[in-house]
Amino acid sequence: MGKVTKASPFAPASMPAVPAIDGVRFATAEAGIRYQGRTDLLLAVLDPGTVVAGVTTRSKTCSAPVLWCRKQLAHGRARALVVNSGNSNAFTGRKGHEAVAATVAAAAKAAGCSPEEIYVASTGVIGEPIDAGKIVAAMPGLAKGLKGEAWEAAARAIMTTDTYPKLAVTEVAIGGEKVRIAGFCKGAGMIAPDMATMLCFIFTDAAIAQPLLQQLVSVIADQTFNCITVDGDTSTSDTVLVFATGAAGKRKVPAIHDQTDAACEAFVGGLRRVMHDLAIQVVKDGEGLSKFVTVNVWGAESARAARRIAFSIANSLILKTAIAGEDPNWGRVVMAVGKSGEAADRDRLAIRFGPHLVAQNGERAPDYVEETVAAYMKNPEIVLHVDVGVGGGQATVWTCDLTHDYVSINADYRS
Amino acid sequence: MGKVTKASPFAPASMPAVPAIDGVRFATAEAGIRYQGRTDLLLAVLDPGTVVAGVTTRSKTCSAPVLWCRKQLAHGRARALVVNSGNSNAFTGRKGHEAVAATVAAAAKAAGCSPEEIYVASTGVIGEPIDAGKIVAAMPGLAKGLKGEAWEAAARAIMTTDTYPKLAVTEVAIGGEKVRIAGFCKGAGMIAPDMATMLCFIFTDAAIAQPLLQQLVSVIADQTFNCITVDGDTSTSDTVLVFATGAAGKRKVPAIHDQTDAACEAFVGGLRRVMHDLAIQVVKDGEGLSKFVTVNVWGAESARAARRIAFSIANSLILKTAIAGEDPNWGRVVMAVGKSGEAADRDRLAIRFGPHLVAQNGERAPDYVEETVAAYMKNPEIVLHVDVGVGGGQATVWTCDLTHDYVSINADYRS
Repeated sequence: MGKVTKASPFAPASMPAVPAIDGVRFATAEAGIRYQGRTDLLLAVLDPGTVVAGVTTRSKTCSAPVLWCRKQLAHGRARALVVNSGNSNAFTGRKGHEAVAATVAAAAKAAGCSPEEIYVASTGVIGEPIDAGKIVAAMPGLAKGLKGEAWEAAARAIMTTDTYPKLAVTEVAIGGEKVRIAGFCKGAGMIAPDMATMLCFIFTDAAIAQPLLQQLVSVIADQTFNCITVDGDTSTSDTVLVFATGAAGKRKVPAIHDQTDAACEAFVGGLRRVMHDLAIQVVKDGEGLSKFVTVNVWGAESARAARRIAFSIANSLILKTAIAGEDPNWGRVVMAVGKSGEAADRDRLAIRFGPHLVAQNGERAPDYVEETVAAYMKNPEIVLHVDVGVGGGQATVWTCDLTHDYVSINADYRS
Repeated sequence: MGKVTKASPFAPASMPAVPAIDGVRFATAEAGIRYQGRTDLLLAVLDPGTVVAGVTTRSKTCSAPVLWCRKQLAHGRARALVVNSGNSNAFTGRKGHEAVAATVAAAAKAAGCSPEEIYVASTGVIGEPIDAGKIVAAMPGLAKGLKGEAWEAAARAIMTTDTYPKLAVTEVAIGGEKVRIAGFCKGAGMIAPDMATMLCFIFTDAAIAQPLLQQLVSVIADQTFNCITVDGDTSTSDTVLVFATGAAGKRKVPAIHDQTDAACEAFVGGLRRVMHDLAIQVVKDGEGLSKFVTVNVWGAESARAARRIAFSIANSLILKTAIAGEDPNWGRVVMAVGKSGEAADRDRLAIRFGPHLVAQNGERAPDYVEETVAAYMKNPEIVLHVDVGVGGGQATVWTCDLTHDYVSINADYRS
């Protein structure tokens, strides 16, 4: 990892207490894949009957584990998940596929299931062959140490440049019974997910049909993980998997079969809370960040156009560095709107920094007072509102500033 | 300007000697628009008969001077050029247009021509109303001090965060006679030109038909200025203007009317050399850079696809910071190819860092030695070759690394 190891200013003071979810158990190990003196391997074992849905990176150079997961998501049955940090097993050719095959064989033996029911994810350096032998050797020990409450340990084992583990939990009422949805994710740099994110794993005891779960995960990922960016760089390994054990069925909780089921709305609300929470936590641990930035765009030709404008703003280096310097440099917002390529009416453009109107009708707002907005920029959380004045399209994107620490971390990630 | 004022490592030891070009004279002044103790205003006066061609930014929020130039380029007659630094007169509403009107009126009076023959460009902070009174007041003095050899002074007057003036000159033989092409440009940050660049002004005494000149400038700008990026941020003010005084006609140099003229090829070669030279100089003065990087992509589906992949690589923060750290992190090249959205065959992808093959056939090259490539990364100029293995499309893009100094410069540009 890089030279900068100070915690994000948004690191939570304490971790949320996440209770066990029926049918889900975790174990972690120090496999020594790249890091020393910390866990880097996670095994999650799921009870029979678990279904899984997910989305993966659209990268054209995606990793071997991503290709494996995509194939298994077609049937959506799951009995175990293996995740390692330190090596992404991406761009590793035939050796990469062999490493996945060895991993799933060992995990299938440990979990007592078929290899097709094993899901694999890897994160870390790209292009370095991974030593699957270390994963295989650790598997029997992991299988003996499985525990339902080991959420924080699981979240820690998958970290790379993250400065804190990212956990979220919620409960929803289905048929008068509580059903839990909880998960964790990792990611701090190379964050500009495209139909997915870095690694994110969510678990629920809800009983839900796999095709419906897949549909929900795709839609919600698009509204959460696909609306964040740290550096505009899309990983080769982005993976979101949501496992539903169905164990709530044993408590007579009704199963959810389609979107018209009464219980579906509650489940969707809960899943959205957990996914949104985890996506925001990724940005709040953005490499080297000092500020968390929300970009709201409206008045665009379409929601798609609004999103492109919002990302043009959120990915602008020259604006992100200005925010790091607490400079209310709204001219750079104008620049980013202009370069997005989407329609905008320069003479109706309005920009607010938090509550402060800085520009309207194509020029600086008459009441603009630089000192007031400069004072606002000292807040750790900044909200930019941009009305481009041509239509009804709206989008929100979450990002962070770009600091010296981002450069330090990434100028020396591998060494 | 920002806190970092150390010169680019690529700053030339001395400026090229640029001789006068028949029909072109310059004067500069300290108008005090934003900077103190340096020149910030340029007047170039052109002899009657001069034609001009140009390209301007595609930004949807372009500046008032850009809108003015676009309108005058339709007729292409030119008698003077006024350029100020310190304020871009962008996003300044009605006041911006009024400032342009006042400027061209004063310049027309000074040059003895109509306002429509005046071209205007402004560079500097966005969104701040410009005080055209300072420009108007300086105009009579400028008109009295015009000189044919004042190239370096002209190039210095238009600088913002540039650490050196950017000049280029060449001569071509037309009808056995020498014709000169010379110019200058500015730009260091907010550089990702879209059909144009920052400010670039080129002058020639060639006699050339304006429609042909326009065609040549558009094509060559696309191969030079449109292939550079410092930070992926497109300015609101990008402008390239090429003025041809036709004064060579007095020396019996034949005029160039269309692309089939024998002289056209020589002229195109000369214009391309000057535009290429100036474009490279912009990148070599990229804000805070320590390395100049050439990205060659081939094997793409089309030239357009190759260019998108090359820009995806050239604009990757996580790769640019790795290059700053002299880390041969070719996995980040793989990532950038993957995120471009263009077709690439992961299993035929080949990557070279300079002469060193680092990846082929979808994995690390068997002869890869990290120490060798790490030693290569210590060079000030880095060349990345990427073959994506699907077709015949090729593109080259020029960029620089991303250092702490970029952050310092842009965290405090305005203060």
